[in-house]
Amino acid sequence: MTILAFLLGLQVASAPRNPLQTLGLSQLGAHRMLTDLTTNIGARVSGSPNAAKAVVWVETHMKSIGLTHIHQIPCMVPHWARGTVERATMNGRTKLTICALGGSVPTPKGGIEAEVVEVRSLKEAEELGAKAKGKIVFFNRPFDPSLENTFAAYGGAVDQRGRGATAAAKSGAVGVLVRSMTLATDDAPHTGAMNYGDGVKIPAAALGIQSAEKLHAALAAGLHPRVRFEQNCQTFPDAPSASVAGEIRGSEHPEEVIVVGGHLDSWDLGRGAHDDGAGITQSLEALRLLKAAGWKPKRTIRMVAFMNEENGGRGAKAYAEKAAKSSEKHYAAIESDSGGFMPRSFGVSESKLESVRKWESILRPFGIERFTAGGGDADISPLEPLGTILFALKPENQRYFDYHHSRNDTIDKVNPRELEFGAIAMAQLAWLISEEGI
Amino acid sequence: MTILAFLLGLQVASAPRNPLQTLGLSQLGAHRMLTDLTTNIGARVSGSPNAAKAVVWVETHMKSIGLTHIHQIPCMVPHWARGTVERATMNGRTKLTICALGGSVPTPKGGIEAEVVEVRSLKEAEELGAKAKGKIVFFNRPFDPSLENTFAAYGGAVDQRGRGATAAAKSGAVGVLVRSMTLATDDAPHTGAMNYGDGVKIPAAALGIQSAEKLHAALAAGLHPRVRFEQNCQTFPDAPSASVAGEIRGSEHPEEVIVVGGHLDSWDLGRGAHDDGAGITQSLEALRLLKAAGWKPKRTIRMVAFMNEENGGRGAKAYAEKAAKSSEKHYAAIESDSGGFMPRSFGVSESKLESVRKWESILRPFGIERFTAGGGDADISPLEPLGTILFALKPENQRYFDYHHSRNDTIDKVNPRELEFGAIAMAQLAWLISEEGI
Repeated sequence: MTILAFLLGLQVASAPRNPLQTLGLSQLGAHRMLTDLTTNIGARVSGSPNAAKAVVWVETHMKSIGLTHIHQIPCMVPHWARGTVERATMNGRTKLTICALGGSVPTPKGGIEAEVVEVRSLKEAEELGAKAKGKIVFFNRPFDPSLENTFAAYGGAVDQRGRGATAAAKSGAVGVLVRSMTLATDDAPHTGAMNYGDGVKIPAAALGIQSAEKLHAALAAGLHPRVRFEQNCQTFPDAPSASVAGEIRGSEHPEEVIVVGGHLDSWDLGRGAHDDGAGITQSLEALRLLKAAGWKPKRTIRMVAFMNEENGGRGAKAYAEKAAKSSEKHYAAIESDSGGFMPRSFGVSESKLESVRKWESILRPFGIERFTAGGGDADISPLEPLGTILFALKPENQRYFDYHHSRNDTIDKVNPRELEFGAIAMAQLAWLISEEGI
Repeated sequence: MTILAFLLGLQVASAPRNPLQTLGLSQLGAHRMLTDLTTNIGARVSGSPNAAKAVVWVETHMKSIGLTHIHQIPCMVPHWARGTVERATMNGRTKLTICALGGSVPTPKGGIEAEVVEVRSLKEAEELGAKAKGKIVFFNRPFDPSLENTFAAYGGAVDQRGRGATAAAKSGAVGVLVRSMTLATDDAPHTGAMNYGDGVKIPAAALGIQSAEKLHAALAAGLHPRVRFEQNCQTFPDAPSASVAGEIRGSEHPEEVIVVGGHLDSWDLGRGAHDDGAGITQSLEALRLLKAAGWKPKRTIRMVAFMNEENGGRGAKAYAEKAAKSSEKHYAAIESDSGGFMPRSFGVSESKLESVRKWESILRPFGIERFTAGGGDADISPLEPLGTILFALKPENQRYFDYHHSRNDTIDKVNPRELEFGAIAMAQLAWLISEEGI
């Protein structure tokens, strides 16, 4: 792209600019805050000292922005911690890269060693019967790469991570290894929540993709590889924690609340930059931009930093329970929890889709091409029974699962301008809801 | 984003899939070819041995895809080469990071040393008069960050790079330093074309952003810094080179041609991955996908790998001259030269905007939300007088100028799926034009 191109570029510059845009893109506040959060605190697993620091961090930032009514909404959270040991070898010599899945039990000291049976589904694991007894079951169904939406590909694979251990334990397996939930081709393992339900608890770990391919190749070649893996993660009693709220009080209808939020906790392998430091700092920035622009909303716009989205949703439940008992009306909620990439759309509660389409042209400069049906991300979904209209920021999603829940979810993967556009779009949408209603 | 999210994801998976999409996303051919081009050849400056290798490379790939009528369209190209020396210091001790601008004359051996005058525009440089005599003029007008479209921001700044030397020379300056054309905040200098016209030729270099800020700070503090800079780039006589074409012949109207292309040359600091290895490999992949899907177009779909987009456009001119003399009708042309990011729209010749809108829903799964007015990128614009309908792939543009013309334009900045979506969109659009007409 060379000199000729700039003449074309000039045509685009003529539209009058929105103060949220001018302030946001000039100051890039979301990225400054995200740099601070990920550098000075880092990963924020529920129940950890870092999660507690993050609660203070978000309160401090709410204050410096000038929000009012800042308060914590307490909740008890699961407290699982990765240990210091995570290792795996195939046939005693080939290293496999693993990480414990969140919530897994540890292996015995020294690890477990067994032959491996590869399956592609929970059903297949359950039907193994005696063939799985004493073995390690290897869940290796990849994301379907031909799906354009990577969240759909994730949705088509993540049951292996969440319930694979339970399915394998039913057939007598002693451990499970799960192919990482990613379309990337590196060897970084991706953690994430798993749940035993009432089943037998056997240790569960994720394999990096290259490690999964190695193990698959050895199995496919009929080499009957034995794998040894060891991890010393621990589950502690539930711990006290909190979500945090702060607001710009509405001038005409203060009792009608528009929640803007993301989740404060993260997994522990990276720094929780895209998931969901992005949502937290975009929410802070959205309210900062409204204040900086001097826009005083009629309805209350409240930022909520939800605790424990990743492995329990306790913060979301506690907030919704409090909201249900309150005299406030939770009019709408906007969540950002799909990464800090360039915005593409807002999901919205299906029944309101037609009502909000008129705002598309206002949001288009910020990357929002359209509203789509379905706004209920995890932290705001519990508000739906209260009649709250739900919105979810949907950014470009191709790169999200390259980083998600892995050591690669770090600030260098976040473009300051793309992140900021999300904040601007959220501020603008909150404003439109506040002033015009739906 | 956690387990709840996958349930939402599943809704998206239901639409029937296009074979171009299934093949493309499963095979990721564009990224495989781009890895090969950037690793085994690398940068491809017009007139360089690497550019000659790239001509053979693209011919080979056209053959292996099964294109026919593969041929070169010869052209003479400017032949400028960066030297082995590029260095600058402020006050004899503070290092400034520079690179020669493409087309610049060298400094004398040992460099030039002078006081510096900072300006923000060509006009300001021309009006310096005697104040610039014997000095180095420093063009330091940044991109306007508040513009949402980074191409518009580029368009608002790039005159300093293209014509700054000429403007400064009029006032008697001995050299120019230009703030790099980027929104990034690192210190990688960005090269690009400059042109002396009929003016006096003084050496011109780009400064990395951090270096530009250092120099600006010293000037703003009234420290009257002296800068020395040296570069030993050279301009050789024009060299013979060529664009390359290959096609899928139309079954009903072979004489009606749809060009699909990008440019084969690149700047020399990185590997020309986004600019424009992306366009070349997307074009190859688009035609490969059509063949792989067994779709036989009625009109001829011809890939053209244009030579010398960056500093002359000689390949584009030669191709258009040949087209003008041919009995073929150049029905339409699709160019990709804005990076290998996720597609967002296709620009199209304004008079045809309404006629093609009906295709938006077909292209939407590949990231194309809409058609926008203006399809004439540099290599296909010369076809416009022939009545050719012009299309330009417009991907997400926030990150483009972080890499553009710098050492950072490398394959690791390209996401394989985002790149592939561009190829799929181009294949689908070429097919629609071929089969339905406009």
